[in-house]
Amino acid sequence: MQRRKIAIMGFGTVGGGAYDILTSNREYILSTQGLDIEVAAVLDRTSAPLVAHGVDSKIFVGDIDKLASDPEIELVVETMGGVEPAKTFIEKLLSAGKSGVTANKELLAKHWSELEQTAKAHGSGLYFEASCVGGVPIIRALGESFQGDKIQSIYGIINGTTNYILSKMSGERLDYHNALTQAQHLGFAEADPTSDVEGYDAAYKLSILASLAFHTCVPYTCIYREGITKITSQDISNAHALGYEIKLLAIGTRDGNAVEARVHPVFVPSAHPLASVSGAYNAVYLNGDHVGDLMLYGAGAGAHPTGSAIVSDVIKGLKGKPEYCDFDNTGKLDKDIDFVGDFISGYYISLTVDDKTGVLSKISTVLSDNGVSIKSAIQRTGQAENTATLLFLTHRAREHAVMRALGTIGKLATVRRIDSMIRVL
Amino acid sequence: MQRRKIAIMGFGTVGGGAYDILTSNREYILSTQGLDIEVAAVLDRTSAPLVAHGVDSKIFVGDIDKLASDPEIELVVETMGGVEPAKTFIEKLLSAGKSGVTANKELLAKHWSELEQTAKAHGSGLYFEASCVGGVPIIRALGESFQGDKIQSIYGIINGTTNYILSKMSGERLDYHNALTQAQHLGFAEADPTSDVEGYDAAYKLSILASLAFHTCVPYTCIYREGITKITSQDISNAHALGYEIKLLAIGTRDGNAVEARVHPVFVPSAHPLASVSGAYNAVYLNGDHVGDLMLYGAGAGAHPTGSAIVSDVIKGLKGKPEYCDFDNTGKLDKDIDFVGDFISGYYISLTVDDKTGVLSKISTVLSDNGVSIKSAIQRTGQAENTATLLFLTHRAREHAVMRALGTIGKLATVRRIDSMIRVL
Repeated sequence: MQRRKIAIMGFGTVGGGAYDILTSNREYILSTQGLDIEVAAVLDRTSAPLVAHGVDSKIFVGDIDKLASDPEIELVVETMGGVEPAKTFIEKLLSAGKSGVTANKELLAKHWSELEQTAKAHGSGLYFEASCVGGVPIIRALGESFQGDKIQSIYGIINGTTNYILSKMSGERLDYHNALTQAQHLGFAEADPTSDVEGYDAAYKLSILASLAFHTCVPYTCIYREGITKITSQDISNAHALGYEIKLLAIGTRDGNAVEARVHPVFVPSAHPLASVSGAYNAVYLNGDHVGDLMLYGAGAGAHPTGSAIVSDVIKGLKGKPEYCDFDNTGKLDKDIDFVGDFISGYYISLTVDDKTGVLSKISTVLSDNGVSIKSAIQRTGQAENTATLLFLTHRAREHAVMRALGTIGKLATVRRIDSMIRVL
Repeated sequence: MQRRKIAIMGFGTVGGGAYDILTSNREYILSTQGLDIEVAAVLDRTSAPLVAHGVDSKIFVGDIDKLASDPEIELVVETMGGVEPAKTFIEKLLSAGKSGVTANKELLAKHWSELEQTAKAHGSGLYFEASCVGGVPIIRALGESFQGDKIQSIYGIINGTTNYILSKMSGERLDYHNALTQAQHLGFAEADPTSDVEGYDAAYKLSILASLAFHTCVPYTCIYREGITKITSQDISNAHALGYEIKLLAIGTRDGNAVEARVHPVFVPSAHPLASVSGAYNAVYLNGDHVGDLMLYGAGAGAHPTGSAIVSDVIKGLKGKPEYCDFDNTGKLDKDIDFVGDFISGYYISLTVDDKTGVLSKISTVLSDNGVSIKSAIQRTGQAENTATLLFLTHRAREHAVMRALGTIGKLATVRRIDSMIRVL
């Protein structure tokens, strides 16, 4: 049995996880897949991460050109993260005819088409199951299952950090800042949490998933994005009282040539399968025109779940021949596709108003004048003196109409504050 | 673009569903997959099902030999169900070099190895995503994801009929017979429901799934099987009171060379993702040594969800080259594998006893003498005069020890009846 040699670039958490699986299950992979896979080189800035991981530093490589010119290395795993130098390095390797396996959603969201052109030009493979939703095989499913279905919608909880924070806020009644601090303490959130809590990470992943699902380029720059930093404990307890959980959802829909792509907090009905996806778990809920509703659920991040997806791609890359996107992935938008900004949704609106006669009536009139129909309204005594809190759930309405209505409502003399506006599934 | 011609054998619900998808999404499949797929022939006993479905009866074929000898047909979908004549027909087609796509779990569970030998001998492909769990891509996932993982366990709700019945019993407090009648009325259960309610259907599917997951032949004859016919409304309400739902689970585990495979009702904790899989939905919950816990959820049956899986296989079959099992699938058991009958589980036990001093103590002693440790016990006034109901939840114990204890308990003079014994997840 010939050894198949691969390399890992970037030996952090995920790179180390992939290494662990490839070494601890090497015999198992040989017996079940007929492949004897050897991690023959690890590229990093120094050999320190290898030493810390107990890996023989003789496989350390500090120079990308040395890796690119090594004829024995067939495939390289990229777990460096970030755009550069990952992009330059992968392009060198793809150009040298080596296949690439990457967990790098930011790089893919920003430069997928360039990487794919390079891979195509040199007959190299590019695999990225690990870039979205850790060990959950959503990329494989979108490519190799339900190919006969038009995928109509994807609703994903695809960012572990925000789901951890929202679960803590929901389960332990922590406020956002305490939940974030706890998440940082436990390694579920980074010191600078912006990419996660502002929804960038989810938007990168949605760009990849929606492009595959809808067979058209859905650039992350076309994705409406709103994070979780404004969600309050009060929103969470209002959600519970109304029968909902708040989740950061990545939503993609396609109806004919109309595509929606957005990342924002959502009131999810408690009975919906996504409502009970909590902690560091992730899930993608999708609907095909024939297969109906489907959900894939699992660990969205972590060294070994993500490592498992990488190893699956390594095996696919070593066994099969490269396949490329079934849509025009040259970075140009399909001119027939209409990206819908004025989408339709239900809305939860919370206002602090003067506790005076006629306020509810005035606000209801503004909503109604804008074509926004109220599903339920609750008035409560406000926290400050002489104030009331008004909570509305609307029927499905157009985003722009709701924004227009809120613009008018915010200027009413009797309205002290628009506390929250959260979309409802 | 060259047309690719296929045929469908057996034009019932599922065959018709596959036909619908292939025709309504033909242009879509052409544009996204680059395949122009034509259903060029439909085999059935008469042309009546075609006419009823609005299909031109000129593509009707009544004779398998005519289909097998048609050089233009590359691939045949088998949606006849049952062992014969499906087996003979598929073997003829595979022998003629045509690939086969089947939704037939019974045929696979009983004759997989023979079909695969025939396919291998003639270079034909054999695809069966539709045989297990409708549109849920569990076969694809087991073959093409987590290949680097040792799958340690599979817990599946993989029979739609029983899940529908148990959900009705749970949600609407129907007894088993009323729920069954309703399921039959709505087409969720057959006139003779034995294959579903006694767990045969789930055992066929588990045989296929466990063989793929554990890379060894797990014959359905080695699967412990117990249906849902003895589940009472009282069991369901006791389960609810204790924080559980009752589900018919197909369970497969592998630990080294020890394999467990069983189908029986289980108390599933309400917070477990499988507890909320209800109605006609199905799900498979699995654990890999690196990927951790994963769940795939979706419609477990129905014309279009199952048709979707068939179409996915048709596309795979027309695009790729045949692949065969990565384990010895010649029908022989691996002599190193030990099928575990004396498995370990928690248990729910319900007894009707004389309402006398010392009964609880006596029964506890028998359990304890057999090494079965009680987790919780509830004593209630029984329904008949001078009786009490005793409910036990045990800690994890060996199956045989519990059976031995129940044998002794059943013979105690003060025990009127063993009402139920249901395993606990």
